[in-house]
Amino acid sequence: MPAPVEFYFDFSSPYGYLASTRIDKLCENHGRAVGWHPILLGVVFKETGGAPLTTIPLKGDYSKRDFVRTAAFHGIKFTPPPVFPIPTQQAARAFYWVQQQNPGAAKALAKKLFEAYFAEARNISSAEAVADIAASLGHDKAAVLAAVNDPAIKDRLRQECEAALKKGVFGSPFIVVDGEPFWGSDRLDQVDKWLETGGW
Amino acid sequence: MPAPVEFYFDFSSPYGYLASTRIDKLCENHGRAVGWHPILLGVVFKETGGAPLTTIPLKGDYSKRDFVRTAAFHGIKFTPPPVFPIPTQQAARAFYWVQQQNPGAAKALAKKLFEAYFAEARNISSAEAVADIAASLGHDKAAVLAAVNDPAIKDRLRQECEAALKKGVFGSPFIVVDGEPFWGSDRLDQVDKWLETGGW
Repeated sequence: MPAPVEFYFDFSSPYGYLASTRIDKLCENHGRAVGWHPILLGVVFKETGGAPLTTIPLKGDYSKRDFVRTAAFHGIKFTPPPVFPIPTQQAARAFYWVQQQNPGAAKALAKKLFEAYFAEARNISSAEAVADIAASLGHDKAAVLAAVNDPAIKDRLRQECEAALKKGVFGSPFIVVDGEPFWGSDRLDQVDKWLETGGW
Repeated sequence: MPAPVEFYFDFSSPYGYLASTRIDKLCENHGRAVGWHPILLGVVFKETGGAPLTTIPLKGDYSKRDFVRTAAFHGIKFTPPPVFPIPTQQAARAFYWVQQQNPGAAKALAKKLFEAYFAEARNISSAEAVADIAASLGHDKAAVLAAVNDPAIKDRLRQECEAALKKGVFGSPFIVVDGEPFWGSDRLDQVDKWLETGGW
């Protein structure tokens, strides 16, 4: 069985959200599973000198317009988050905690977190907000609140960020197919063809 | 008759080159003309803090790979330039000089310059190289060499860069359709739909 396609993203990344709504189905069409890896872009930007898109002169205003337009182009529900960007370590930690128990449930939680932030204008930066969303999916709220402060879970997220950097991940979404890196939701057409043809 | 679609690019921009091979036909399909505007990304980057893609840690290596892969994905001939990026003011000045006499001929020159740099591994940074390419299209070489040092032509390029910045142009390619800005060759699918529908 081929290795899963690796999907790296930050929960605060609009293009990560857009890709998250399409990546599983796209890979499934080629008989491939997807491994989801939430990371912290802040950690990556320390290495690359990157900055949140919306803080860059000219590019910032364009980006806010492009988020909305690109979501609509693909028919994806999108509401500009009132607070942007936000810290996402609590969301990512909750993801990895759930994943230890049930990978499928972790993916469901990730989708719910993305939706809450990018379609329902909810701020998902606090442990409380993340735990509430997890609870709505049947997870124990107190256990989630404990998990995001668990040193082992914190360490897991650190390791994921380091591993991502080592693989060359510098943005979100970032997709690796059999060693071939693709950056951006606008590379999903190439990911699709790469999975079909094995490369060119 | 509707205003032309505005196409901004730097002759040293790989994604500008990729877009240049597709933009005219795409707009023509919707009965629209395209105004080509070579600019200098260096001037824009002073405003936005941008930097040539290939100089950025991690992103640089990825970009070099993505140039080649994306060109092949679209079936566009591409040879990685041995020297990259390069200064392009001579190319842009020659373009505006030819345009004053014959807009169609200026577009033909731009295509030839792009091809020389991105498909034939020729360095087009010097006035001599630009004049040789112009001469191969029937322009008078000595006149081109004089034109790129003409203060009026130099001023025209400066004005184009300033006007582009005022319109919010911060990268290459940058396409404006009836006031709506699109950045990147990977937005041509949205440009196509925007021209078809008038927006969404």
